[in-house]
Amino acid sequence: MAKRIRLAKRVVAQSDRLAKDLSDRFNEAGVFVANLMSSPGAGKTTLLEETARRLKGELRMAAIEGDLATDRDARRIETAGIPCRQINTGGGCHLSARQILDAIQDFDLAALDVLFIENVGNLVCPAEFDLGEHRRVVVSSTPEGDDKPVKYPIAFHHADCVVLNKMDLLAATNFSVEAYRRFVRGLKPRIPILELSCRTGEGMEAWLDWVRDERRAVARKAVKSAR
Amino acid sequence: MAKRIRLAKRVVAQSDRLAKDLSDRFNEAGVFVANLMSSPGAGKTTLLEETARRLKGELRMAAIEGDLATDRDARRIETAGIPCRQINTGGGCHLSARQILDAIQDFDLAALDVLFIENVGNLVCPAEFDLGEHRRVVVSSTPEGDDKPVKYPIAFHHADCVVLNKMDLLAATNFSVEAYRRFVRGLKPRIPILELSCRTGEGMEAWLDWVRDERRAVARKAVKSAR
Repeated sequence: MAKRIRLAKRVVAQSDRLAKDLSDRFNEAGVFVANLMSSPGAGKTTLLEETARRLKGELRMAAIEGDLATDRDARRIETAGIPCRQINTGGGCHLSARQILDAIQDFDLAALDVLFIENVGNLVCPAEFDLGEHRRVVVSSTPEGDDKPVKYPIAFHHADCVVLNKMDLLAATNFSVEAYRRFVRGLKPRIPILELSCRTGEGMEAWLDWVRDERRAVARKAVKSAR
Repeated sequence: MAKRIRLAKRVVAQSDRLAKDLSDRFNEAGVFVANLMSSPGAGKTTLLEETARRLKGELRMAAIEGDLATDRDARRIETAGIPCRQINTGGGCHLSARQILDAIQDFDLAALDVLFIENVGNLVCPAEFDLGEHRRVVVSSTPEGDDKPVKYPIAFHHADCVVLNKMDLLAATNFSVEAYRRFVRGLKPRIPILELSCRTGEGMEAWLDWVRDERRAVARKAVKSAR
C-alpha cells in the first residue's frame, strides 16, 4: 500500500510539473486559457460554437477538444470558424497536461488571444487535473437537475465561473434556479453564475463579456509581472 | 513504468476477485442485481423511484446509491418505499466492489428479489469496474444529445440494456432517436433500447417487463446450475 501511495504521489508531482510548464508557455505567449468541464451533453461544444461565431472578428481563438472517441466536436468547432485540435483519450476520463503539451504544438500560441480547452464530459475526474489554464468554467444544464453542485462538489469548488445552460428548457423541467444558485454559492460565495441558452442566444452577452474581461485581467497581470 | 503497470494489474486483479465474490453471494442468495450507469442528471434516481413505486407489491427490492457526496438520492429512494444504502465516494469517480461488499452487510440478500446499484453519475469510469452484477443498464436522456454512444463507447459496449429517458423533452431538443439507435446498435447490434419518460410514465411498462424478464432468466439459470 505504501508503495502505491509513493507511486501515486510521483505521478501527481509529474503532472503538476507539466501543468506549470503549460502555464509558463501560456503566459509567455500572452494567450488566455479557459478549461471547460461538465457532464456529457451539458452543452460545452455548443457554447464554444456560439462563442466562436460571435467573437470571431474580435478575438483570435483556438480550441482543444477532449473526447474518448470521434472527432465530431472538433469538426463542429472548425465549422464555426476557429482552428481546433481533437484529443481522443481512448478510455481516459480527463485530459492530461501531457496531452495538452502535445496538442499545442499545432498552434502558434503567440498569435492567439484565447485558447479554450473542452475537457472530457465528466463532472468528476477532470476537476483533479491542472492543465495550466487561467480559469476553469463548469457548465451545467437545466435538465440535469439543480442538485449537481452538492453531488459533485469538487468540480464546482475549483471553478472560477459557472454557466447554467439550456435555460430555454427550464419550464419543461423541475429545476429550481434559486436552489441551484444557493448550492453553488454554498461552495463558492462570489462565483459568477451565468444563466443562458446557447440555443436561443439569451444570456450569451454576459458570457462573452466574462471571456473579454477575464482575458483582459490575465493580460494586465502578465504585463505587471513582466515589469 | 513497468512497476506502475505491475501495480495497476495487481489492483485490477484484486477488484476482479472481489467482484467474483459478490457475484457468488448474489447467486447464492437468488437476488437479481442490476448496475445502472449514466451521465449526471440523466434520471437514474427518478427511474428507480418510479420502479420502486410500481413494483413494490410484486418484487422485494433494495438499492445502493453511489454519489461523491450527500444522501439526497438514498432519501428519495426510501421515500419511494424501498430500503436503500447510500455510499459516498468522496472524490471517487465510480463504485468499487469493496464498497458494495461493505454495503450489502445491511441487507438480507436472501429476502430480496432485486437489488439495484445506482453508480456514480459518470459515463466513463464506472464502465471499467465489475460489481458482480447480472446486468448493466446505461441510462441516456434526450437533452444530452444523440451522439453520446459514439463519444462514450465503453459504457455502451458493456451494457445489457439501454434506457432512453426524458422522451417528453424530445420535441424541445435536436435529438434524433433514429441516429441514437443507429449509434447504439453500431456497438451492440441486439441490445434492447427502451424509450421512456419517468416524468409522464410513457414507456415505463417495457422497462418493468425487462426487469421482470431478466430477473426470471437469471433465477432460471441459477436453478439449472444448482442441479
